[in-house]
Amino acid sequence: MTQTDAATGVTPLTDLSEHSYIANQTKGQYLKRLRRIEGQARGLQRMVEEEQYCIDILTQVSAMTKALQGLGLGLLDEHMAHCVVNAARQGGPEAEQKLKEASDAIARMVRS
Amino acid sequence: MTQTDAATGVTPLTDLSEHSYIANQTKGQYLKRLRRIEGQARGLQRMVEEEQYCIDILTQVSAMTKALQGLGLGLLDEHMAHCVVNAARQGGPEAEQKLKEASDAIARMVRS
Amino acid sequence: MTQTDAATGVTPLTDLSEHSYIANQTKGQYLKRLRRIEGQARGLQRMVEEEQYCIDILTQVSAMTKALQGLGLGLLDEHMAHCVVNAARQGGPEAEQKLKEASDAIARMVRS
Amino acid sequence: MTQTDAATGVTPLTDLSEHSYIANQTKGQYLKRLRRIEGQARGLQRMVEEEQYCIDILTQVSAMTKALQGLGLGLLDEHMAHCVVNAARQGGPEAEQKLKEASDAIARMVRS
Repeated sequence: MTQTDAATGVTPLTDLSEHSYIANQTKGQYLKRLRRIEGQARGLQRMVEEEQYCIDILTQVSAMTKALQGLGLGLLDEHMAHCVVNAARQGGPEAEQKLKEASDAIARMVRS
Repeated sequence: MTQTDAATGVTPLTDLSEHSYIANQTKGQYLKRLRRIEGQARGLQRMVEEEQYCIDILTQVSAMTKALQGLGLGLLDEHMAHCVVNAARQGGPEAEQKLKEASDAIARMVRS
Repeated sequence: MTQTDAATGVTPLTDLSEHSYIANQTKGQYLKRLRRIEGQARGLQRMVEEEQYCIDILTQVSAMTKALQGLGLGLLDEHMAHCVVNAARQGGPEAEQKLKEASDAIARMVRS
Repeated sequence: MTQTDAATGVTPLTDLSEHSYIANQTKGQYLKRLRRIEGQARGLQRMVEEEQYCIDILTQVSAMTKALQGLGLGLLDEHMAHCVVNAARQGGPEAEQKLKEASDAIARMVRS
């Protein structure tokens, strides 16, 4: 994502683009967490397939829900620390829009 | 799970065991929903990999959380309609325990 | 709630009515918890009136939400242990309806 | 909160303090919503006192929870649009701290 121009040694401005909100070091961590969540979804299929006890399946469903929420909260933190803060500094309608988007995403998380 | 004894043609009593709470017709539906949830987990990995816009990723996280909660509520309904109702009819400490288990599972779902 | 008929000395069947689900000893506890929740609502008005720091107000909102959820989970437990269990024993469409009602109430709690 | 100095006709700088995040026009609306929530808490006490049907009480508990969450989300929006945006513009450790506080408040709301 963040490439230093070979000729000038200067990190181009696109480094500050909205797409760079997920720092490279944390991107790997999100992928790892998502692979674990994918594994939980497969584990649940095995539990249903084997007709394991319903309460045990529900315990896993709650654990997976918590893992997803934790991931969502982590992504939101990064989004606020980068996109929202950058937009706030620039001000204007873009800042308004970024705040509105973040509010809507938070409301969806609180209500789900 | 529910096998008819080849010799007698009689469905054995284990058909009514607590493990048969997931009726065969709904078991397939749960597996289908879980495969879709697994697909959502893989879709999220692709979105993070491609560094898609954070708010779009969060929208998918909320959709996946809702899908998981819906699945949990469905499983809980079946559990109550079978295990809890059966235990209630038998009464005694088993009924108490099944109610306590269901309460705890509901509390975990409400708080997650 | 439970009155013994003066003439016959017989506790009328209404003793088992759906309205007796809240045992007298726990009724007082629910009222106490609800008065505390009402007090939290008044405390929040004072905080907004005095323009206290928003994050502190939000902390109180979350504490009050948790108190409400705990109360709802307690009421649901009693409902299941009495109404749902009684209906399960009687069976028939009434049992179906009680289970449906409980499921819907649980879904509302999980989604709110 | 926001008083214009009688002698100078100048709105003092405290007008921009973190405590002024709740604009006067919305402060009245929050108080109105909180009085309605307080009324819901009293209504629930009457329902428990009269031993109304448990499912009806639970419906009211869920409605009150939703009202509280809506209020919390509204307060959070204002907090982000004022405190967080102001802190973001100033930058430095204060901005970091405001973001951390907001993240923690959001996590509490999502998990409650």
